Amino acid sequence: MPYRAPISDYEFLFRNVIGFDQIAATEKFSEASDDVVSAILTEAGRMCEEIMAPLQRPGDLEPARLENGVLRTSPGYAEGWKAIAEGGWIGMSGDPEYGGMGLPMTMTTAVNEMMSAACLSLQLAPLMTQGQIEALEHHASDELKALYLPKMMAGEWSGTMNLTEPQAGSDVGALTSKAEDNGDGTYSVTGQKIYISWGDNDFAKNVCHLVLARLPDGVPGTKGISLFLVPKYIPDENGNPGVANDLKVVSLEHKMGLHGSPTCVMQYDGARGWLVGKEHGGMAAMFTMMNNARLGVGGEGVGVAEGAYQHALAYALERKQGKTPSGTIIDHADVRRMLMSMRADVFAARAIMLANAAAIDMAQATGEADWAARAALLTPICKAFGTETGMRVSETGVQVHGGMGFIEETGAAQYYRDVRVTAIYEGTNGIQAMDLVARKMMDGGEAASNLLDEIEDQAEKARATMPELAGPVWEASESLREATEWIVAQSDMNNRFAGASAYLKAFARVLGGHYHLSAALADPDGPRAKLARYYINALLPEHSGLLAQAQNGADDLYALSAEELAV
Amino acid sequence: MPYRAPISDYEFLFRNVIGFDQIAATEKFSEASDDVVSAILTEAGRMCEEIMAPLQRPGDLEPARLENGVLRTSPGYAEGWKAIAEGGWIGMSGDPEYGGMGLPMTMTTAVNEMMSAACLSLQLAPLMTQGQIEALEHHASDELKALYLPKMMAGEWSGTMNLTEPQAGSDVGALTSKAEDNGDGTYSVTGQKIYISWGDNDFAKNVCHLVLARLPDGVPGTKGISLFLVPKYIPDENGNPGVANDLKVVSLEHKMGLHGSPTCVMQYDGARGWLVGKEHGGMAAMFTMMNNARLGVGGEGVGVAEGAYQHALAYALERKQGKTPSGTIIDHADVRRMLMSMRADVFAARAIMLANAAAIDMAQATGEADWAARAALLTPICKAFGTETGMRVSETGVQVHGGMGFIEETGAAQYYRDVRVTAIYEGTNGIQAMDLVARKMMDGGEAASNLLDEIEDQAEKARATMPELAGPVWEASESLREATEWIVAQSDMNNRFAGASAYLKAFARVLGGHYHLSAALADPDGPRAKLARYYINALLPEHSGLLAQAQNGADDLYALSAEELAV
Repeated sequence: MPYRAPISDYEFLFRNVIGFDQIAATEKFSEASDDVVSAILTEAGRMCEEIMAPLQRPGDLEPARLENGVLRTSPGYAEGWKAIAEGGWIGMSGDPEYGGMGLPMTMTTAVNEMMSAACLSLQLAPLMTQGQIEALEHHASDELKALYLPKMMAGEWSGTMNLTEPQAGSDVGALTSKAEDNGDGTYSVTGQKIYISWGDNDFAKNVCHLVLARLPDGVPGTKGISLFLVPKYIPDENGNPGVANDLKVVSLEHKMGLHGSPTCVMQYDGARGWLVGKEHGGMAAMFTMMNNARLGVGGEGVGVAEGAYQHALAYALERKQGKTPSGTIIDHADVRRMLMSMRADVFAARAIMLANAAAIDMAQATGEADWAARAALLTPICKAFGTETGMRVSETGVQVHGGMGFIEETGAAQYYRDVRVTAIYEGTNGIQAMDLVARKMMDGGEAASNLLDEIEDQAEKARATMPELAGPVWEASESLREATEWIVAQSDMNNRFAGASAYLKAFARVLGGHYHLSAALADPDGPRAKLARYYINALLPEHSGLLAQAQNGADDLYALSAEELAV
Repeated sequence: MPYRAPISDYEFLFRNVIGFDQIAATEKFSEASDDVVSAILTEAGRMCEEIMAPLQRPGDLEPARLENGVLRTSPGYAEGWKAIAEGGWIGMSGDPEYGGMGLPMTMTTAVNEMMSAACLSLQLAPLMTQGQIEALEHHASDELKALYLPKMMAGEWSGTMNLTEPQAGSDVGALTSKAEDNGDGTYSVTGQKIYISWGDNDFAKNVCHLVLARLPDGVPGTKGISLFLVPKYIPDENGNPGVANDLKVVSLEHKMGLHGSPTCVMQYDGARGWLVGKEHGGMAAMFTMMNNARLGVGGEGVGVAEGAYQHALAYALERKQGKTPSGTIIDHADVRRMLMSMRADVFAARAIMLANAAAIDMAQATGEADWAARAALLTPICKAFGTETGMRVSETGVQVHGGMGFIEETGAAQYYRDVRVTAIYEGTNGIQAMDLVARKMMDGGEAASNLLDEIEDQAEKARATMPELAGPVWEASESLREATEWIVAQSDMNNRFAGASAYLKAFARVLGGHYHLSAALADPDGPRAKLARYYINALLPEHSGLLAQAQNGADDLYALSAEELAV
């Protein structure tokens, strides 16, 4: 099923929904005119359509494998990586001083979404590399930057993130990997890391690992962790890959999906590494990387949802069944219901994702704390709702296919299997929800309140022309405001956590209503207003049940003992 | 992860929630005393735990395969089938005249659920055979019954259902398979059928196919279809499998899950068959089989949900992560939220399933039309909500496992993959929803209204002792009543269909509240009341958003043209 890059959707969203003009009006991003945006997204979209999309099935059928310690990637992946690298898509938002294009994160986010729609397994490789670029830009020494950044931005070298250990998953602070100072500016890193996406490949000349480990004087917990850059090959004096470092891929995981992306168990045996950031300052550096990775993973969910939607729509348009005006199943109300829900939710999740990226850009361009707070607030919502949308839409995509959806040949099942991990990695969606109600509410709910003010301002203005859409959005926002105040008032954090997942989803529902309303206002007689009407009438009402759950507190959850939870 | 049969849950539900005492009080089922029920369910449970559960993984790892036209089933499946057959579990509710046990469908449904929790792929074989037994009991000639039924009930022979053809899925009436009268009491059946679950095996001495085909004078559409019994081996004069019939398995599908169950493309080339029911009366006979198969598939969803829940709970009890009182993740509020939601929904879906089966038993034992109407009303709800619960709970089960959930070795992913098809086969969940708002509302909503009366009666009585639980259930029921009246008032069927899926789910939510309230009343200070409180406070509120969608009508769905649905 050919993937078509949704360029017109991005153009519409940039122009009418997420306020990209603000970004282009800053000095930092003054080159990002409408024309430039369209040209660049179109070029990226073509690469996704023509080069990446054909790699989706081969990666599933012929997974990456380990042969005598050498990692062999899926057929065509090396060429795919080359196209991504040569297009400049890895360093799109990278610092121009080191070979990046310096473009807004909003654009990179759109390109990343298209790449994940076309071929999620391969897209994860540049995404991890981008995360590393970001961490190095912010925390590495000038020497490390000069050596590594240009090669990573050009895709000559690739990057990975090494956090997890068997006993240290969501609780990163429990890690036991060790590092020792060699006294020559380098460190020896030892330990085992698991779930390392793209821990190795056969297309980049070097694979650079960012590894969290503890120095001898590091205190237990997250405050004693440092971050090290540990390359597969130690660069020689000319900056070329030299001798092999003391690290290896021990094994690959056998996963439900994402087969084209090798998920590695990595072993470091006194591997030589370089400190990134300060000693014991590893978590701060890692968070730089993780925050944008969370936005990126949310975008993966949106991308897979778009791919699954297009796939299901194409099937519905050609599958003849039953007596309908067109002769195909597209005319059945329940099939329409599925397609409209998919499309309306993809729009909502994409708008949230782009608004998140736009806030990052504005924070970077203006230095204003309000923008940074907006970005921080939106990140967990983008990650959890984007990936939840990926799961729901790909599940519905299978359903649209009927029996064919369960057969692997159609490809509908692959979206469903592949996207499942996005709700888990980069912090499970439960962790995102806890982040939202705890860390992101340490301001007493101010950032949330500011956003709700904007939502209600727009709804107020829209009452005159679109009362039947504006009213429900305004009311939903008010309900969300009450729930936010309830959450902030809970000093027992478990009361917040108990309803966190429901609260996050309700927040996304309301934001979806807001952005759909923006779209309707910009296109009052067009298809986007019709889509907005469906979303607001049929999907937005879900927020009320979610907010009831969000404010239920923890008592019910702990009413049953562990024994009583068993049969 | 060892599966434990939830016997105490069944005993509690039989006694306190679904009114099994009514069934045992009928003459037909007078032998089904509490002791008998407990003994039989316990014995079946042991078989599921000890024999079937160990077959779950092997079936996934070593799928059924076709070798030179011979079907080879997964390791251990032949022994598993033998245990099911020898336990008498296939003919549990079969007519004693032909070797069945004549036990209530309620008991069979519980046993089928346990079998599907233990090993869904294998369970589908007896389930299909039961469907055939039922169709033959109601529609076959005495000669066919005498020859086939005892062998099928004993598991000597197995049975399949052949409806679907490539161009005839949900629209069965479009089938093109043909049958011709041989003039000797037999027919020649020709055509290709797809998605035939357990279309062949290597453990039953004969495989008996019920095949829908059209006689030369059959009109187009469903009214021209007849049903034929077409055995793999034609019985000889002693009733033993004789010469091979002109049929074969062409190929097996490569599916996302359920690998242990061979899904066959079947080819019939003038195969000899016997008419079941009247000429052109095939759909009526098929519906007999399908109705109980829908109950059975709903039960498959419940069973997989139970299996996935137990699996996730065991993981949560042993996985150490973060600082919690127990040291394991079971103490985290969001993990609790997942486990409580899983358990509360399994209880609701199981109660709906058993209430459905109980209505079938009462209809059979009393001949009362009200019971038949109750069973007919509950069947689509049981099928769709049971399988939806299977999907949601297995998805959450993966989430509880974190990164491990995406790794196949844990088994969590298998539940998620296997159960996906249950929302599709035996009539997609969309078809169930359409059945509910159309066919099952041809009585003007009377059967639904009668059920809502019961719900509100119980809630009224419960107000005195449990006002905080009774109130929300009563109010939710009233909202559902209003929505039902709205649906019945729609003469444009598309207005009904547009909201059908949401309406069905809301109905299930309200029924869940009702049965949880029954449980709380029976166990006011125990764990079941605590579980009911969580369900009613946190999950029941979902009904309001669903009912808004249910009453939104079709206009929004058709507002976008097919072109506008595309990018």
